[in-house]
Amino acid sequence: MSRKDIHDVRTVSCVGAGPIGGGWAAHFLAKGYDVISYLHDPAEEAAFRRLINTAWKCLEQIGLAEDASLDRLTCTSDLAEAVGKADFVQESVPENIEIKQALYEKLGDLVPADVVIASSTSGLSMSDIQVRCSTPERTVVAHPFNPPYLLPLVEMVGGKKTDPEALKWAAAFYTLTGKAPLIMEKEVPGFVATRLQEAVWREALHMIENGEATPEQIDIAMVNGPGPRWAFAGPCFTYHIGGGEGGMAYCLDQFGPALKFPWTRLVAPELTKELYDSLVDSCDEMARGRTFSELSEERDAGLVAIAQAWKKIGKMA
Amino acid sequence: MSRKDIHDVRTVSCVGAGPIGGGWAAHFLAKGYDVISYLHDPAEEAAFRRLINTAWKCLEQIGLAEDASLDRLTCTSDLAEAVGKADFVQESVPENIEIKQALYEKLGDLVPADVVIASSTSGLSMSDIQVRCSTPERTVVAHPFNPPYLLPLVEMVGGKKTDPEALKWAAAFYTLTGKAPLIMEKEVPGFVATRLQEAVWREALHMIENGEATPEQIDIAMVNGPGPRWAFAGPCFTYHIGGGEGGMAYCLDQFGPALKFPWTRLVAPELTKELYDSLVDSCDEMARGRTFSELSEERDAGLVAIAQAWKKIGKMA
Repeated sequence: MSRKDIHDVRTVSCVGAGPIGGGWAAHFLAKGYDVISYLHDPAEEAAFRRLINTAWKCLEQIGLAEDASLDRLTCTSDLAEAVGKADFVQESVPENIEIKQALYEKLGDLVPADVVIASSTSGLSMSDIQVRCSTPERTVVAHPFNPPYLLPLVEMVGGKKTDPEALKWAAAFYTLTGKAPLIMEKEVPGFVATRLQEAVWREALHMIENGEATPEQIDIAMVNGPGPRWAFAGPCFTYHIGGGEGGMAYCLDQFGPALKFPWTRLVAPELTKELYDSLVDSCDEMARGRTFSELSEERDAGLVAIAQAWKKIGKMA
Repeated sequence: MSRKDIHDVRTVSCVGAGPIGGGWAAHFLAKGYDVISYLHDPAEEAAFRRLINTAWKCLEQIGLAEDASLDRLTCTSDLAEAVGKADFVQESVPENIEIKQALYEKLGDLVPADVVIASSTSGLSMSDIQVRCSTPERTVVAHPFNPPYLLPLVEMVGGKKTDPEALKWAAAFYTLTGKAPLIMEKEVPGFVATRLQEAVWREALHMIENGEATPEQIDIAMVNGPGPRWAFAGPCFTYHIGGGEGGMAYCLDQFGPALKFPWTRLVAPELTKELYDSLVDSCDEMARGRTFSELSEERDAGLVAIAQAWKKIGKMA
């Protein structure tokens, strides 16, 4: 399938008027696209526009594309009109497999055949969603993080009938619009970010349950400890920097035994040579030749930015 | 024990010249205290001062206390001289129980009896550290997050012989100096923050091991997804805001069943009425009467600050 060049995309259709559908619409408007939003019920339009206006205030602060304008938003409750001229479709309807399957059956015919249709689903698989779609090869999962107009992550995976090329095209398009797409090889429950988040959540619940920490203490610990570091470097690279000149290899040698400690209720896997090498190699690649002292300066610059933001707007809890 | 008013503290002794000891020294200097650092070996002084100078550049950007000065740092390898005039002692020597016990035996006599001695230990218990100390009632654990001059968290807990009042005094003093102390009721392995961090780390290792995500993908997911939110609101309060008008109660009703999903390898506890109420009540308290729309505006302001920082200095990986 030959698709439009990502730089030639002009019109994005956003199907669904909830916080996710609205968040996506705000994102694409801010990047200078024409956006057509499909609302299931015309009565949703006022609330939908309030949502967009709220998002817009944030987006203005971060910086809009030169020709970005709220005037380039069209709302309609006619699905054919909403998607017939789309260069890209972002679907964010309720998480109900019946609703999604019925919708993709229609989208399969209404959306021009060379246009990718991406679902914001957080829990359903594209293999299930696409069963009644006549053109399933261009349907992909592209799960954003809330709010989609501020958080860059888009977790992507195809279904059984998805053409991998459609995934690649959509990932390139998201990158062009400032997003951070992550293409997964497998349909893993919870994708990547939700699994990390859920591990934290479950450990927190155990601590609360056992009287080891209150919910407020858990939040204090996160916001003043690991949270700020993770806004700039993920868990692997944070340890790589924490390992000093020796990087990740030093960390694993030093703290490998701690994997046996009862520091959480989650049992760790065996630290095999493969796992060890995979971590060390990946961190070396991510470092792109930067020295330890360059890396720790960058980390500190990130944390200074957080500290300055805290001074200006405070922490929430 | 009657102690000096926290506002009358002038001199802080930092025992230990590694990154943690140096980080603490930089922190207290930036807050306008006289700092006496004990170095085990005078030969360490050059590297130690380089460490302080690096930290100072960051601290200048965040803002120094009016009378803060690097000239107020004294280095000595005479322990009695280092701690004899201290109003507060922060100990950060290597994580070796023999070394710590021998040191606390000396500190017990050298440090004025009304002065609190806080250990930066991340893994040893104060009950063990204080066994040979003649004045153990004023010894506490106060575990910082690295780098201690930028991250506010200080996890605190006493040993068997610790006077709870010493913990309270030290927590009040840390708060005065801009830190976020967290007093734990129990000596839990890994405290709170390390347990949360370790849950993420172990889940990440499982994903890498199973070929579900590469280390780089895990980092991309964290930095662009949960990480930035956690720099401003912890996991509990993040869900409280995510629940909209219904807050945490709505989240638990809606996503409670997800605790049974295989979204991580960590098994969740039963969501009992007590656990449910504890979460809901705690989040209501943390909200301090702010409405949902106020809370979501604050969250967005935090994320805008992160987005602006990303634009300026980038993400690390």
